[in-house]
Amino acid sequence: MPKLKPLSAELVEDLLLGNKILFKYGIVDAFGHISVRHDSDPERYVMSRHLAPGLVTEKDLLTYDLDSVPVAATKHRLYSERYIHGEIYKQRPDVMSVVHCHAPALIPFGITQAELQPVYHVSAFLGLGVPKFEIRETAGMTDMLIRTAALGQALAEKLGERPMVLMRGHGATMVGKTIRLAVYRAMYAVQNAHIQLEALRLGEVTYLAPEEAAKQDAYTDEVVHRPWNLWQREVEE
Amino acid sequence: MPKLKPLSAELVEDLLLGNKILFKYGIVDAFGHISVRHDSDPERYVMSRHLAPGLVTEKDLLTYDLDSVPVAATKHRLYSERYIHGEIYKQRPDVMSVVHCHAPALIPFGITQAELQPVYHVSAFLGLGVPKFEIRETAGMTDMLIRTAALGQALAEKLGERPMVLMRGHGATMVGKTIRLAVYRAMYAVQNAHIQLEALRLGEVTYLAPEEAAKQDAYTDEVVHRPWNLWQREVEE
Amino acid sequence: MPKLKPLSAELVEDLLLGNKILFKYGIVDAFGHISVRHDSDPERYVMSRHLAPGLVTEKDLLTYDLDSVPVAATKHRLYSERYIHGEIYKQRPDVMSVVHCHAPALIPFGITQAELQPVYHVSAFLGLGVPKFEIRETAGMTDMLIRTAALGQALAEKLGERPMVLMRGHGATMVGKTIRLAVYRAMYAVQNAHIQLEALRLGEVTYLAPEEAAKQDAYTDEVVHRPWNLWQREVEE
Amino acid sequence: MPKLKPLSAELVEDLLLGNKILFKYGIVDAFGHISVRHDSDPERYVMSRHLAPGLVTEKDLLTYDLDSVPVAATKHRLYSERYIHGEIYKQRPDVMSVVHCHAPALIPFGITQAELQPVYHVSAFLGLGVPKFEIRETAGMTDMLIRTAALGQALAEKLGERPMVLMRGHGATMVGKTIRLAVYRAMYAVQNAHIQLEALRLGEVTYLAPEEAAKQDAYTDEVVHRPWNLWQREVEE
Repeated sequence: MPKLKPLSAELVEDLLLGNKILFKYGIVDAFGHISVRHDSDPERYVMSRHLAPGLVTEKDLLTYDLDSVPVAATKHRLYSERYIHGEIYKQRPDVMSVVHCHAPALIPFGITQAELQPVYHVSAFLGLGVPKFEIRETAGMTDMLIRTAALGQALAEKLGERPMVLMRGHGATMVGKTIRLAVYRAMYAVQNAHIQLEALRLGEVTYLAPEEAAKQDAYTDEVVHRPWNLWQREVEE
Repeated sequence: MPKLKPLSAELVEDLLLGNKILFKYGIVDAFGHISVRHDSDPERYVMSRHLAPGLVTEKDLLTYDLDSVPVAATKHRLYSERYIHGEIYKQRPDVMSVVHCHAPALIPFGITQAELQPVYHVSAFLGLGVPKFEIRETAGMTDMLIRTAALGQALAEKLGERPMVLMRGHGATMVGKTIRLAVYRAMYAVQNAHIQLEALRLGEVTYLAPEEAAKQDAYTDEVVHRPWNLWQREVEE
Repeated sequence: MPKLKPLSAELVEDLLLGNKILFKYGIVDAFGHISVRHDSDPERYVMSRHLAPGLVTEKDLLTYDLDSVPVAATKHRLYSERYIHGEIYKQRPDVMSVVHCHAPALIPFGITQAELQPVYHVSAFLGLGVPKFEIRETAGMTDMLIRTAALGQALAEKLGERPMVLMRGHGATMVGKTIRLAVYRAMYAVQNAHIQLEALRLGEVTYLAPEEAAKQDAYTDEVVHRPWNLWQREVEE
Repeated sequence: MPKLKPLSAELVEDLLLGNKILFKYGIVDAFGHISVRHDSDPERYVMSRHLAPGLVTEKDLLTYDLDSVPVAATKHRLYSERYIHGEIYKQRPDVMSVVHCHAPALIPFGITQAELQPVYHVSAFLGLGVPKFEIRETAGMTDMLIRTAALGQALAEKLGERPMVLMRGHGATMVGKTIRLAVYRAMYAVQNAHIQLEALRLGEVTYLAPEEAAKQDAYTDEVVHRPWNLWQREVEE
């Protein structure tokens, strides 16, 4: 088997920045993780060893196959929930990056009947649908974690073609066709959740219509660099 | 045509400070913008190129005519919503500065029937009225953005003679006869929104009466330097 | 008339620290003020000229008589609401320090029927009673500010023997027998307001009983140095 | 009597870090304290003298017997509520560390009928039960503080075998078999309280089932180092 090329420098930089950004803005705390599909082999992805995102550096990055087995033997401990990443990459060839988090603002929408819906244009992607994963349906009483390929597969199926999935009593997982888009979605899903919680106090809410959401979502690619450049400056200071 | 004088140093300083202040206090994030009418030509205004406000420096400032066309040819990308600024300057000769933002605390008041009203004297200007702009009334299903002069004109008409306008599913736009006043209004509209959301939990609310609001608003010019000096110190540290 | 001794170095230090602490913790923003009764003449008090508390330095301190007239001629602009301080010092010989603020968390309790009550022991002083001042009762439609001795007197009467008074559509005023106690009361009144707003969501609330509040309040003198020393360290860093 | 060995360097470091972490993240402010059982004598515990946790250094640590009497004579003032610690160590041989705090987010759950319950897996320990201590049942009208061994004993009895106890109108006390676990529980009890308050707005809430909570709680030992390492980095910066 020919040796796998290393992840490109651009993706290494974005992956490290993604870890820092998600931590700085409270999307992840000590828990949660972000990965990127390998740009030289779509059957591989890169993610940190078992470590708080705020502490991740380049030497902590490991390459996994889509069964979430490290490609090179390692003595490091691994994230127990790495199957979230591998199984989504298997089912979603369009996805190049996955974020998993326990952001506090999202938890209420996972444990109640309330639907996370787009309150403004910057989180228009929510209008594409936000399914909820109930681990009890797949595995009954568990410790709540996605510790197996089977659970990862069930989660990926619940996600379907959507940009994110809420996980009851646990957190959420967002995807994107770039690291920047996956991070963007995590950031603005959380912002949307804060706003929606407040708006719901005030009576009936007008969300973006599906057509408004779709039109705006198509525009995100053109502007995602604008917050990314700001966030980069903020975490590098 | 005689060459346009550059914007005065005082206005350049205030415009750059305004960008920094709005960012530091979370009125804008990567999105949103602030402009000033040119002090040598009321048919011109000055605003950054397409850039997060927190990153704007003097070299990023461009001069536009009131149709929101840059006066000098530029290869830089422009804010797609610059028409907000140009069309308001056309319709409101008293307005010297415009702020557009997506401040989270304001969104709930734009997407529900609740009215933003002054809970205390520092946001008395809200007593002058806060109309709501529904883009569907003008243009049906859109991507929510003010991408054309026609949409900017519709927004300016909804604003009328008032100090600010809420935009459903999008954000808000504030105006002032100085940069400092426009920034002041953005800052305290947001603070008022936070307080009002809490007060509404507690039962019936006594807002400033229109007469109280008008008397206090007339006094703002005498005190706006006090927060401005503080904010300047805070962003320069 | 013999020349008035300067304010003691201890009180100057505490007054400057009080300004900084109130600003750092968001009790005041650009507005609000803190004063101390002069320790060489109970008919005088010391407070900054018209300035944001976060910017006050020793050279900004002025001495006023209890009619709120500066003892020495000054060209500096004065706080328009200095009558709050002078009139309370007249009516309350036990009071050595006064804080006036527009803290956001307190506003909802001033503009609704809800009563600010002690949710825990550290804000036990609230159990001594928190009256509400409605300026309309004294002066009808105003700009909301305490711009005259008559308004200051009316506010002081509403305060009575209590530790603080809420002002409808405006803010709150706290008093203490030391600067440290007045600051303590401002800090924990705000903290209490935050907690009470949350608790009220959860159903019926058990507040400290009056007897519990009185017993705990008597103990505050013995512990006020503990937060003060911490706050001092925090603002001096 | 042979001289007691000093507390091990590892526990001194963790105890000082615990003080700093609890302060940095707002679990304690000027009030509250953390202790550790002595690793050379289970009949002793170590805790700071009367001092804000954010100011505690190694020289402030004192050793107490389980009656909460300092082992060596000291002129320093002591925490008046040290009996919380001594009496819990007496009744719970499995407990190696105790945190006492007045964290704002927890107070509402102590003064209403609402039950603090686990909204997600990281606070699964709450599923083991969170009793509420009403000091009136033991001592009638008091100043709310645990100033005696009898009150400490009553609190320890209410705690029973659970990981934490809420104290009406006062705060909460958490325990753990390590300093790191006691701090972890304080941190995530507070995070859970914030989330639960929001979730309760949205309708019926699905909490972790007791079986889910028990399974996840058993896993905490394996991961507590991950947030601890992050928090250590954050307070050391």
